[in-house]
Amino acid sequence: MSGTLVGVGVGPGDPELLTVKGLRALTEADEVFVPVGDTGEVGRAEAVVRAHLGEEPGRLRRLLFALSDDEKARNASWERAARTVAAALSEGKRCAFATIGDPNVYSTFTYLARTVRGLLPGVEVETVPGIMAMQDLASRSGTVLTLGDEKLVLLPFTAGKEVLEDALRGFETVVCYKGGGRLREVLDAAERAGRMEGAVYGARLGMEGEEVVRAGEMVGREGTYLATVIFKDGGTL
Amino acid sequence: MSGTLVGVGVGPGDPELLTVKGLRALTEADEVFVPVGDTGEVGRAEAVVRAHLGEEPGRLRRLLFALSDDEKARNASWERAARTVAAALSEGKRCAFATIGDPNVYSTFTYLARTVRGLLPGVEVETVPGIMAMQDLASRSGTVLTLGDEKLVLLPFTAGKEVLEDALRGFETVVCYKGGGRLREVLDAAERAGRMEGAVYGARLGMEGEEVVRAGEMVGREGTYLATVIFKDGGTL
Repeated sequence: MSGTLVGVGVGPGDPELLTVKGLRALTEADEVFVPVGDTGEVGRAEAVVRAHLGEEPGRLRRLLFALSDDEKARNASWERAARTVAAALSEGKRCAFATIGDPNVYSTFTYLARTVRGLLPGVEVETVPGIMAMQDLASRSGTVLTLGDEKLVLLPFTAGKEVLEDALRGFETVVCYKGGGRLREVLDAAERAGRMEGAVYGARLGMEGEEVVRAGEMVGREGTYLATVIFKDGGTL
Repeated sequence: MSGTLVGVGVGPGDPELLTVKGLRALTEADEVFVPVGDTGEVGRAEAVVRAHLGEEPGRLRRLLFALSDDEKARNASWERAARTVAAALSEGKRCAFATIGDPNVYSTFTYLARTVRGLLPGVEVETVPGIMAMQDLASRSGTVLTLGDEKLVLLPFTAGKEVLEDALRGFETVVCYKGGGRLREVLDAAERAGRMEGAVYGARLGMEGEEVVRAGEMVGREGTYLATVIFKDGGTL
């Protein structure tokens, strides 16, 4: 009998945005894995976990995910992480994996769980939802995401500039992830669609160096990769 | 100096899906308001609050929202609720309003806050994000909402059948709220778009009578108004 793998969404960064269920999942796990790498994502999940569990060196285990343009190197890194988790699972342990945001929304947890399943077919996998960056940015900026019959699109800018432009034309609310590194293109698209007025930019939400500003103030500035931009005309709470 | 109004998202129904921040907001508030009415929404927010705070009759206050087809009656009910909250705020109290899901996503809190602002201009309003039904359904059904460059649409079926059909044609992930009462039309649209295979239906998530099933099993059955349907081909975790 292998153990259970639980993907725990720990929210965008503020340790208090962890759910009671997520806290219990972390507390009850035999081992708590946190991803470590060299992206902005690094350290966020670990920081939330440490804020609640303290050091507990025996239970907290760091999984290195190499960020590399070399696909082979990336895959090898995934394989290694999955093997580490699978080894603990095959001892019947309950293993939690902490991931920022929600474990079913653009999460590294999905890749990890699928790779682990390849090694341990039939292993039980659960997830605990976590607050997403778009929700935290809406809250911190006083933006109402949707009301009445309004529709929302959530997209990563990596899907393409045209995808963002189409969404800005057809939807009351558009949330753009992963566009911080190409912020000028994101804001250009917004300008052309006449959607700058109701746009807000957020980065490092709930952490030191938090930025929550009108997107217009970001014109000419650099963003960070994990930034969130919400487009919502007249969306002030 | 008037007090502060805090909209607290308490999640879809499972008391454990409240965040630590939400729990603190409820605990620290001078008064905790919960909506009471005769929709399915009724009682959910109150049940989560009571699970954490117990009875505390002095601090918990129930606000009646009459469900009526008569707009005048509805508005009168809103006005009355807002006046009750505004009275507490004008005594300088910190007032929490518990709302299911997230307070910035199709939430009664938005209407309440705007009406209160009309009565007490300049009153401070804050929100605490809450887990949304789509996140809980994804978790309970083992559905990955988005990965890589995928895009998600969240829409209420009340926006129209054509809106759902368009979304099903153009987006990898479509989440349909408020379609449970017209489930046959929702599933018809899915059939025509060839999107039944990856569709899951959820109702009363985290509560007694919870239903989490493949949407195909709902053909010919009635749904409940507050149901959630996720369309995601190949979305199994």
